[in-house]
Amino acid sequence: MARIVQKFGGTSVAGIARLEKVSLKIKREIDAGHQVAVVVSAMAGVTNRLVRYTQALAGNIQTAEYDVIVAAGEQISCGLLALALSQIGVPARSLLAWQIPILTDLTHGSARIVHIDSNCLEECWSQGVTPIIAGFQGLTPQGRLTTLGRGGSDTTAVALAAAVKADRCDIFTDVTGVYTADPRIVPKAQKLKEISYDEMFELAAQGAKVLQTRSVETAIEHQVHVRVLSSFYDEPGTDLIPQAKLKDSFHVSGITHRGDEARLTLKNISNNVPIVADIFESLARQNIHLDMIVHNVSLEDHSDLTFTIMKGEVPRVIAALQEMKQISYEDLIIDPNVAKITVVGVGLQRGIGLATLMFKTLAEMNVPLQVISCSAIKVSVLVDESMAEEAVRALHKVYGLDKEF
Amino acid sequence: MARIVQKFGGTSVAGIARLEKVSLKIKREIDAGHQVAVVVSAMAGVTNRLVRYTQALAGNIQTAEYDVIVAAGEQISCGLLALALSQIGVPARSLLAWQIPILTDLTHGSARIVHIDSNCLEECWSQGVTPIIAGFQGLTPQGRLTTLGRGGSDTTAVALAAAVKADRCDIFTDVTGVYTADPRIVPKAQKLKEISYDEMFELAAQGAKVLQTRSVETAIEHQVHVRVLSSFYDEPGTDLIPQAKLKDSFHVSGITHRGDEARLTLKNISNNVPIVADIFESLARQNIHLDMIVHNVSLEDHSDLTFTIMKGEVPRVIAALQEMKQISYEDLIIDPNVAKITVVGVGLQRGIGLATLMFKTLAEMNVPLQVISCSAIKVSVLVDESMAEEAVRALHKVYGLDKEF
Repeated sequence: MARIVQKFGGTSVAGIARLEKVSLKIKREIDAGHQVAVVVSAMAGVTNRLVRYTQALAGNIQTAEYDVIVAAGEQISCGLLALALSQIGVPARSLLAWQIPILTDLTHGSARIVHIDSNCLEECWSQGVTPIIAGFQGLTPQGRLTTLGRGGSDTTAVALAAAVKADRCDIFTDVTGVYTADPRIVPKAQKLKEISYDEMFELAAQGAKVLQTRSVETAIEHQVHVRVLSSFYDEPGTDLIPQAKLKDSFHVSGITHRGDEARLTLKNISNNVPIVADIFESLARQNIHLDMIVHNVSLEDHSDLTFTIMKGEVPRVIAALQEMKQISYEDLIIDPNVAKITVVGVGLQRGIGLATLMFKTLAEMNVPLQVISCSAIKVSVLVDESMAEEAVRALHKVYGLDKEF
Repeated sequence: MARIVQKFGGTSVAGIARLEKVSLKIKREIDAGHQVAVVVSAMAGVTNRLVRYTQALAGNIQTAEYDVIVAAGEQISCGLLALALSQIGVPARSLLAWQIPILTDLTHGSARIVHIDSNCLEECWSQGVTPIIAGFQGLTPQGRLTTLGRGGSDTTAVALAAAVKADRCDIFTDVTGVYTADPRIVPKAQKLKEISYDEMFELAAQGAKVLQTRSVETAIEHQVHVRVLSSFYDEPGTDLIPQAKLKDSFHVSGITHRGDEARLTLKNISNNVPIVADIFESLARQNIHLDMIVHNVSLEDHSDLTFTIMKGEVPRVIAALQEMKQISYEDLIIDPNVAKITVVGVGLQRGIGLATLMFKTLAEMNVPLQVISCSAIKVSVLVDESMAEEAVRALHKVYGLDKEF
């Protein structure tokens, strides 16, 4: 007997027919003698509709009331799934975050799970009842609802798997696993049989939507065995594994790109203040995250500062910069037509050749690199949006990912 | 300074523009120096949609999961209304039933409120925060969600008003008050300035949809000053008042009719068992409520039993009757094409003449009376559905309700 946490995403539970299909998938594991806990997202489209209501009333906010409103979607889907299971003879009950409870910090809209009480689940299992948990939701110590940020049900599932010491956490989604690139852009993209935690973390952070970044963090922290699978097709998915197990470490696992950031450049800043720190601090206070950063201090007493932020944050950043009277600069250039391409692979930390291959390939294609950013196992470059897709396809080929594994 | 509970129904909060309008209505009372608590229904259509989901999965059920699912609508609307208020500078916070808590019994789908803890609301007021309460929801002592039955937000509001000893409970709805008849059927129907608790109870129980019957019960029990008002028009509504205050007690207050019941007749039942009690008990165990009942024992050792039930219950009643082996009858006749007309007025208990007027009027119109049922302040008759509307108009006239008050 294994203890398994299954998580079903929004498209997997969109509509009665799909709920019934999902309930059969759950029943199969229970019939095989496993102890199962299920985490469920809101039905596809529901959270978006609720977010739009809040936007229509109050713009882009992430307050306590925002969380009360958007958390309702998971309440509906977990009740429905519990109902669907009982219809096929599987005793099940819904558990909302406040009933377990799943305690979080106070960061409304993107709260972090602090503690999960597993007693409630153990009690269900001891009574032969399968617990169906509302994903995405949390509770503050003060008894108010929180949510974990978009994709947060992944994190609920992984954190829950850690809390109940599950043997496996199966993330059922609308793709069949983790791919070497977005198959819509790269027709030769291939599904990975396995991927290391670290690589998955970088892929998620750099725009691969298959898992919420924080869920990968949680998996790493608690060494949760995560498997990404399709809700719709019965085929092997992708296993997240500790790096050590990887057969071939000299490789690149995937290439991802995202076009949701904008590039801002402050030209000719006067160098007499610790400007980058100031800007960082001021924007961080407003929960604005700077991504790629280049501070070019080549000039004698002036410098250029370039950074990327989410496109939606541009107006707030402009307002914040205008308020920072201590900073003087000649010009502010904003370019929303940029894309970030990232190559991820544990091989990058072994040999410099793999990173060089990226720069060489893009140079041959005459793709100018606007910003470069590296970590141990990834290299990201910012390029003109119009060149991004072709560049991703070329990189997919030169890194040997087109060839069938 | 008065303490006021305001309740807004589903059409009053259907959409962002209406939520904004409602928030201004609330602000007006707060600006006038009053302490306000707001109870809110789900946005119009939301509860129906959620109920349809449960029906598609499991038919007509009222289980714990049903309640988890359908309670979500009020969570959304109360979060949105709190948000709308904060946008116009009124500090407000949403309160879900489990946060207060509003404790109920275990009758899922139509739970009864057992206790409301008012501390949570008092604390909000002491901090200058207006509490926005999700209507319709409750919590069992075991920590599971319940709902109070359709229209249950009315009962939440009245029970809350009783719990916090409010000076008034304003029920804002899509009509401008309580009418002498349904204005869609009777063009000359008039709004009542006031109505006694007892009459309102009968009108609600007999199909007037303006207030949930149980909310009137609660108002009577705790002598809550309830006022029914329009969300959309600024005009005087209808006040519920103790009977003693009524100026003219020799009157009829309203005529209502409903077409949602079916008539069942068991022909030639053998009289050797206490059949009515048996049927009552058996159906009550399945939460099926018999309404009008006639047991005709004119025959020597046989009798006919006629009763009405909600149309939706017919299949369950047939199944239940078939299971009752101790009862033998010749035939079961089912007629769904019936309507119940009810005349309500404290005057009915004073002079027999007012009831006689009803029978006389219907006899002159050649409307056969299938069943008659009386209480202290109402007379109900079951008639053929096709004759109901015309009969209501005629009765409205003969009881003097067409004349402007």
